[in-house]
Amino acid sequence: MAEEYKYEFFNVTFPAEYVAHVEINRPEKLNAFKEIMWLNLSKIFRRLSHDPNVRAVVLTGAGPRAFTAGLDVQAASEGSTLGPAAAGTPRDVARSAVGIRRHVLEFQDCITDVEKCEKPVIAVLHGVAFGLALDMSLACDIRLSTRDARISIKEVDIGIAADIGTLSRLPHAVGNASWVKEVCLTARIFGAEEAQQVGLVSGVYKDKEEAVARGLDIAKLIATKSPVATMGTKEILNYSRDRTVSDGLQYTAIWNSSMIQTQDVKDAMLSGLQKTKPKFAKL
Amino acid sequence: MAEEYKYEFFNVTFPAEYVAHVEINRPEKLNAFKEIMWLNLSKIFRRLSHDPNVRAVVLTGAGPRAFTAGLDVQAASEGSTLGPAAAGTPRDVARSAVGIRRHVLEFQDCITDVEKCEKPVIAVLHGVAFGLALDMSLACDIRLSTRDARISIKEVDIGIAADIGTLSRLPHAVGNASWVKEVCLTARIFGAEEAQQVGLVSGVYKDKEEAVARGLDIAKLIATKSPVATMGTKEILNYSRDRTVSDGLQYTAIWNSSMIQTQDVKDAMLSGLQKTKPKFAKL
Amino acid sequence: MAEEYKYEFFNVTFPAEYVAHVEINRPEKLNAFKEIMWLNLSKIFRRLSHDPNVRAVVLTGAGPRAFTAGLDVQAASEGSTLGPAAAGTPRDVARSAVGIRRHVLEFQDCITDVEKCEKPVIAVLHGVAFGLALDMSLACDIRLSTRDARISIKEVDIGIAADIGTLSRLPHAVGNASWVKEVCLTARIFGAEEAQQVGLVSGVYKDKEEAVARGLDIAKLIATKSPVATMGTKEILNYSRDRTVSDGLQYTAIWNSSMIQTQDVKDAMLSGLQKTKPKFAKL
Amino acid sequence: MAEEYKYEFFNVTFPAEYVAHVEINRPEKLNAFKEIMWLNLSKIFRRLSHDPNVRAVVLTGAGPRAFTAGLDVQAASEGSTLGPAAAGTPRDVARSAVGIRRHVLEFQDCITDVEKCEKPVIAVLHGVAFGLALDMSLACDIRLSTRDARISIKEVDIGIAADIGTLSRLPHAVGNASWVKEVCLTARIFGAEEAQQVGLVSGVYKDKEEAVARGLDIAKLIATKSPVATMGTKEILNYSRDRTVSDGLQYTAIWNSSMIQTQDVKDAMLSGLQKTKPKFAKL
Amino acid sequence: MAEEYKYEFFNVTFPAEYVAHVEINRPEKLNAFKEIMWLNLSKIFRRLSHDPNVRAVVLTGAGPRAFTAGLDVQAASEGSTLGPAAAGTPRDVARSAVGIRRHVLEFQDCITDVEKCEKPVIAVLHGVAFGLALDMSLACDIRLSTRDARISIKEVDIGIAADIGTLSRLPHAVGNASWVKEVCLTARIFGAEEAQQVGLVSGVYKDKEEAVARGLDIAKLIATKSPVATMGTKEILNYSRDRTVSDGLQYTAIWNSSMIQTQDVKDAMLSGLQKTKPKFAKL
Amino acid sequence: MAEEYKYEFFNVTFPAEYVAHVEINRPEKLNAFKEIMWLNLSKIFRRLSHDPNVRAVVLTGAGPRAFTAGLDVQAASEGSTLGPAAAGTPRDVARSAVGIRRHVLEFQDCITDVEKCEKPVIAVLHGVAFGLALDMSLACDIRLSTRDARISIKEVDIGIAADIGTLSRLPHAVGNASWVKEVCLTARIFGAEEAQQVGLVSGVYKDKEEAVARGLDIAKLIATKSPVATMGTKEILNYSRDRTVSDGLQYTAIWNSSMIQTQDVKDAMLSGLQKTKPKFAKL
Repeated sequence: MAEEYKYEFFNVTFPAEYVAHVEINRPEKLNAFKEIMWLNLSKIFRRLSHDPNVRAVVLTGAGPRAFTAGLDVQAASEGSTLGPAAAGTPRDVARSAVGIRRHVLEFQDCITDVEKCEKPVIAVLHGVAFGLALDMSLACDIRLSTRDARISIKEVDIGIAADIGTLSRLPHAVGNASWVKEVCLTARIFGAEEAQQVGLVSGVYKDKEEAVARGLDIAKLIATKSPVATMGTKEILNYSRDRTVSDGLQYTAIWNSSMIQTQDVKDAMLSGLQKTKPKFAKL
Repeated sequence: MAEEYKYEFFNVTFPAEYVAHVEINRPEKLNAFKEIMWLNLSKIFRRLSHDPNVRAVVLTGAGPRAFTAGLDVQAASEGSTLGPAAAGTPRDVARSAVGIRRHVLEFQDCITDVEKCEKPVIAVLHGVAFGLALDMSLACDIRLSTRDARISIKEVDIGIAADIGTLSRLPHAVGNASWVKEVCLTARIFGAEEAQQVGLVSGVYKDKEEAVARGLDIAKLIATKSPVATMGTKEILNYSRDRTVSDGLQYTAIWNSSMIQTQDVKDAMLSGLQKTKPKFAKL
Repeated sequence: MAEEYKYEFFNVTFPAEYVAHVEINRPEKLNAFKEIMWLNLSKIFRRLSHDPNVRAVVLTGAGPRAFTAGLDVQAASEGSTLGPAAAGTPRDVARSAVGIRRHVLEFQDCITDVEKCEKPVIAVLHGVAFGLALDMSLACDIRLSTRDARISIKEVDIGIAADIGTLSRLPHAVGNASWVKEVCLTARIFGAEEAQQVGLVSGVYKDKEEAVARGLDIAKLIATKSPVATMGTKEILNYSRDRTVSDGLQYTAIWNSSMIQTQDVKDAMLSGLQKTKPKFAKL
Repeated sequence: MAEEYKYEFFNVTFPAEYVAHVEINRPEKLNAFKEIMWLNLSKIFRRLSHDPNVRAVVLTGAGPRAFTAGLDVQAASEGSTLGPAAAGTPRDVARSAVGIRRHVLEFQDCITDVEKCEKPVIAVLHGVAFGLALDMSLACDIRLSTRDARISIKEVDIGIAADIGTLSRLPHAVGNASWVKEVCLTARIFGAEEAQQVGLVSGVYKDKEEAVARGLDIAKLIATKSPVATMGTKEILNYSRDRTVSDGLQYTAIWNSSMIQTQDVKDAMLSGLQKTKPKFAKL
Repeated sequence: MAEEYKYEFFNVTFPAEYVAHVEINRPEKLNAFKEIMWLNLSKIFRRLSHDPNVRAVVLTGAGPRAFTAGLDVQAASEGSTLGPAAAGTPRDVARSAVGIRRHVLEFQDCITDVEKCEKPVIAVLHGVAFGLALDMSLACDIRLSTRDARISIKEVDIGIAADIGTLSRLPHAVGNASWVKEVCLTARIFGAEEAQQVGLVSGVYKDKEEAVARGLDIAKLIATKSPVATMGTKEILNYSRDRTVSDGLQYTAIWNSSMIQTQDVKDAMLSGLQKTKPKFAKL
Repeated sequence: MAEEYKYEFFNVTFPAEYVAHVEINRPEKLNAFKEIMWLNLSKIFRRLSHDPNVRAVVLTGAGPRAFTAGLDVQAASEGSTLGPAAAGTPRDVARSAVGIRRHVLEFQDCITDVEKCEKPVIAVLHGVAFGLALDMSLACDIRLSTRDARISIKEVDIGIAADIGTLSRLPHAVGNASWVKEVCLTARIFGAEEAQQVGLVSGVYKDKEEAVARGLDIAKLIATKSPVATMGTKEILNYSRDRTVSDGLQYTAIWNSSMIQTQDVKDAMLSGLQKTKPKFAKL
């Protein structure tokens, strides 16, 4: 485990060449998140984004019981993680609102740093995966799950509309608007099979060991590809998700006008003809 | 049944606390729509939207045979519901176009009032569900169906592209663009199972009784939640469906800057810890 | 086969009234594409778009082995189809970029001509369907497949992000963002069943004969409908896919302000009442 | 003055064929707005929009002193026009926010009905033109002014960001972003000359009589044109203001596909050749 | 005058290195446009766009009297240039609409080819500049005028909303929405000074000779700059005009990621230090 | 000068209550920017954004000769500020492109922090104002100038399209598209009067002393207003600049649903009636 990736409540390891494994590490609290944790998450993914030794990332939760139970509500109600509103002192509504908005935007930005990471990120959900679990894994590129996962968009149960990303990303991630509304409005817990059926996760595995192994396999496979090609693929897919097809095409054309000039294209083609494994320079 | 909800061709009842049940009531004509009906539909949902005694709505069709057979084509061809074009008198093309456009925009607005209703709406499809049935249920949040439902985007069979919402909402509701094109272009009748498989409905039940009961159960469940939280969840999901993730997040932050200041958050959290049922003030 | 549709590497036939069948015809090379082929594809679909004798189109690949293996990489590396970058001579990076951008935009435009074709297009995938196969079929309206199809978004394997449309259209065509990312980032080959499950194709058939027959059946069915109605349905669905529901509705209203004035509406309604087959004038 | 246009606080007259004159009529209070007034304004413009006898509208304020001094703050603080927040009773922040949002959206909709009016609207500012004066006149198409007008985006002086339209329309109406920010942030009163220089008004006249006469002249000139052409011109300009050039062109093409089929084109062309005044049918 | 630029009704010359001069050449008809002319205009600008010997273009009208009087209405009413609607035969409204839409879209595309031209284009208006004159010059980058120019957005006078681009581009080109509406709705003729004051043209010169000379001077100045830099500047300004600042920045970053790698940067910097004139390779 | 605002190359002072003055301080180099300077600029404005003691900011350049001469090209060519491309070592084009893109995005983000600052920012241009001077001042809210300012969008003279914001913000800031293109494509130096005429600056003053004094006066005036109101005004104007009027209105409604609940509204209204100066709590 590299020195520069030592952040409290996270284990970052490199189980294979060009593959990073980020583990949320607060298993005694079901990996529930305190403020320091999303700040650290952001720092880790900003670093991974530009790290030439990383081409794919796997994100998991430590311990047998939970990917993450979501926000540590107890810490939030004691401290300031629900924003100034939770502080108890009566304040001017607008000034509270300004404080909350700053807080929410900062929190959102931390999670969006996972989406902005130039390298593909694979989330592996297991056990309890509530609230922030969804905000985070929807900012990842690929979602896998164990068979025993219990997933919930839990926020309405604490009286709020989810505000860290789930409600903005889920309608673009899953092609069943009726189901999206139902699970967001009811906070109903659902299982892995249902998640796969509606397209929230793209693979379900019998236990955590198998699911993480599969996540690492995909990461390793991606890591064998040209990092120029995989970075571009992630970026253009995210760009196009949010825009017209016409805008997506225009962006793609200028993107590839430089990226296609890479040596990787020649190396990849040659390897294809020679049935060898290409070696690509670091990015 | 409340006095203020007496509108011709509709039954509005309140089968449980905070739950409204809107029934399209013209069973002898398979609940086919005349102009007065979509005007009334709009009035009902505009009222429900601000009614403090309502937190969730179920929309169904009266009688055993149809949710709705769609537009009452006979009434339309006799009257003006297809717009001035149907009136027969030869007129200037542009002036006819202006009249049709006004008519279509007004009709669309009536159906969009279901989507704009601040409270979540659950549609239960059964029997015949043609044409307008889709326009309407796609403006709802959650769609359930009986096993015997026969669904069709019927408009091409009367020589027109569907213009009351189906073609604009369906591509955002269902994650199978090929299927969407096929059923819209062919007007093919499809069943509940197919509808569930592609994600058009999120639940299929053996008969109308069971399906309506399930719809009411979901409504009751939603009605137990903070109305601030469920209203925000519906609004942000609708907003985000149509926009970039980045715009969705920005809107969410300002939304919650006031909404999260509600007493409901504290009550919901306390109830969570105490395993009690929270009571939320009216909205 | 009509004289005006004689283009090298394509067979264009008219197997039924108002139905065109475009066959990619380079089976000895697994229907791999050289530059002349996408230029011809564009010409064919621009002509079909305005051809009054055509109301629906089926697109298939000749021979038993492949819909298309994608770009003919050998031709591309010999010639100029990967753009000036492949030419070998060292050049100014920006000038190469300008050349590549022009090339990619022109190539994209050719494929987009399939999407812009006013008549619905049904793609039938069989055997090998790699790379450009997806770019092309995602520009079609309906996608069918044989059971033996082997599909792959192959581009990362030659070191590039797919740039002819797949990455811009796929996130809007399929409701499983996790799966989309996985197959785009890994270039993994997947089968027809998986394609159907995630919603990439809407029908799987036991062999090419059956799949093409089914494609033709859908085309024939569409061809019996008012061409005004089917053209509008395709156009509004494509428009709405890329925009807010509100913008979709506004566009629909002005679209139908003229289109609904067609004689086809009266003919279609009358036929509906009389249980006869309507005849619609050419478009 | 037509019977159907009798609304409290407004005079609606028809000083020339096809020309309507709407006068805000509460001069003793500098034409300050109470809630009933914007509700009436909306009703008037919704009616004018579809009135076949109207092709252009002039909007002015009664009396010598003011176009309008804006919101009647006294009435607002007594009643509910600033929303439930002003009611004094301590309430749940979120519930107050919901009430305010409903109120602001309804108020905005009333003003937007001026913009949505199918017929061009010319505002003539004179004397005091504060706050709502801008919200309203920016929803008009053409803005004229007397030399003595004293204009101000006054809202920051009552502690709020203007929320009825000025901040959303002004950046699209005036090509001097620095000036826009300055007058919005400081609430500084500025004169007609400055307004003309930055492009907020397109004509300045020596007194109210002359300015209203000029407004009526423009209205009369517009009223001589084909109402199909002027309605389309207004609609497409508003549509294009908010969108890409490409989307504007696409909308224009479908708009004119019906509108250009009007008899007016032939009549206008013939009149042009014959140097006669064309007569156009009512719209 | 180069052989490959011989198109009827146009003179294309190369008065200075890297500078092209396109002259509309039908002075006996005030340079009024027939269909062949906009088709030729498109061909010329598509060719100029990729011509390595061109870095800036000036567009003028031949003869002393007119830049262009716009559409040749006589030719249009005889032929088909107003679309099938003008053909006289009574036809189905929808089929006419489809024909008109095809025609308008093709016409728009021809004019948009001026905007898409990779090289900056400078229009010099003189004398009569009506209708299409505006559509065309708004698709150019820079607009100059002689003092005697008489400009009009003339379309409402022939009963139509302008549909070849003026209504979509003008609101983004000029910062005086009130003036834009006035001249579009009234078809009023205005002069060069007014055009300059509102920002429609950025220079007014005493006669055609001087104005064209000034246009050529600007073109020559642009032609001394790096063609990589000027192409990028035009492209990014057009892109940003239509989009959010945030999207503009994102597009700029990927654009320059290749373009800034050009040798031109080093040459330009060195020339800056050495006070010499840089020579840039052809683009 | 506060301790926490000590950043190299900047003086930050507080000349009046709630007013901050940021001075670019490298006068011996005409305030040309090195990398450390835009990083510091970002830090300063991020801090000012949330500083409760600041309600308005003035940005100026130290010394008599320049606001800023733009990028320090010498430092850039020695170091890495033009990105890896300038480093000299031959590298893979795509890998260089990735490095450049990261660099440009980070640089843009620093300048955008001025726009994101919650408090209004007034730039005062004097003397030389080249390149980055525009990128920066266009991210400010209000732009003033001395009479002697010499302004240029200089980037094409070093072979690049401006990439730090000018090309994305200028088309939205100035209502003369022709002039925008001319000065961006030619890098021509223009003066303050021209800048004022086209709407780039909203005030021109005889010398630096007077211009800065005027900037401070505006800042002091803004600082007397409710900080809730001015923050909202800035935010909504920026939001609306980039979006449709309809989206702007929707955002405004939710914004004010909390902000209008502030005590400031009551205090401001009361002060208005009592002709006193309101005191607003810190934000």
